[in-house]
Amino acid sequence: MTALRLARPDDLPKLLPLVEAFHEHIGAPTKTDHCESALSPLLEGNPLGVVYLIGPRIAPIGYIVISFGWSVEYGGMIGTVDQVFLRPSVRGRGIGHEVLSELPKALADAGLKAMNVQIPFDDEAAQRFYSRLHFKQRNGIITLTREG
Amino acid sequence: MTALRLARPDDLPKLLPLVEAFHEHIGAPTKTDHCESALSPLLEGNPLGVVYLIGPRIAPIGYIVISFGWSVEYGGMIGTVDQVFLRPSVRGRGIGHEVLSELPKALADAGLKAMNVQIPFDDEAAQRFYSRLHFKQRNGIITLTREG
Repeated sequence: MTALRLARPDDLPKLLPLVEAFHEHIGAPTKTDHCESALSPLLEGNPLGVVYLIGPRIAPIGYIVISFGWSVEYGGMIGTVDQVFLRPSVRGRGIGHEVLSELPKALADAGLKAMNVQIPFDDEAAQRFYSRLHFKQRNGIITLTREG
Repeated sequence: MTALRLARPDDLPKLLPLVEAFHEHIGAPTKTDHCESALSPLLEGNPLGVVYLIGPRIAPIGYIVISFGWSVEYGGMIGTVDQVFLRPSVRGRGIGHEVLSELPKALADAGLKAMNVQIPFDDEAAQRFYSRLHFKQRNGIITLTREG
């Protein structure tokens, strides 16, 4: 099984290029100092989220950021896949499936009640990917956002 | 302006009937012990969320639960309206608008980057309500959930 390692502050140099590649990939390029200040609190133990490196710590092949939150209806802690990224060269080998199959189970054992992920409604590949992982659309629910 | 008061453990007896009324209202009735164990950690200071009583502490007219989380793209802490409820007898007076106008501003001053809310896509009244509060739909994004 592909190793997941909780990222720590000294992993930042290996993590930053992956996060910048992800932001490029989704068409929302960001500056290094934005990424650094967005990641450092999590690496330093902020309870609102965690970052895992996928693969060897010295040469990670990807990363996943889980944001934590609370749901009164679910009765406890919930998680959201904030970002997940694999280097293009290692895709198509089932690594993403493995990560997103094992991680919710491990976090459920630690008390997580549910895991959310947000995807574009027209991304059929992502829908198939998450459907195989038992993620289901809550019918007719939309998310509204107020920034700043 | 309508007072918002951070709910503490000794507010639980006033809070519980309101939360049970909300769960009845959304068609997901829950047992008192579920609500109690879902609320107590927040009242005791769990950093994943907060509960505010709306109105006088001794006779609250409603409550709002905010779940906190983290977004690397937004660069920091984000919030989600987990639940908001006003007693039927005080609705239609602009209290909900006031609460959801003031609270995101206060939390933004404390570092919140964005606030989310999830509503049924066919609830036009809720859409108008949140639209007036500058909440916008992120086009084409759907949420998938894996429970347990």
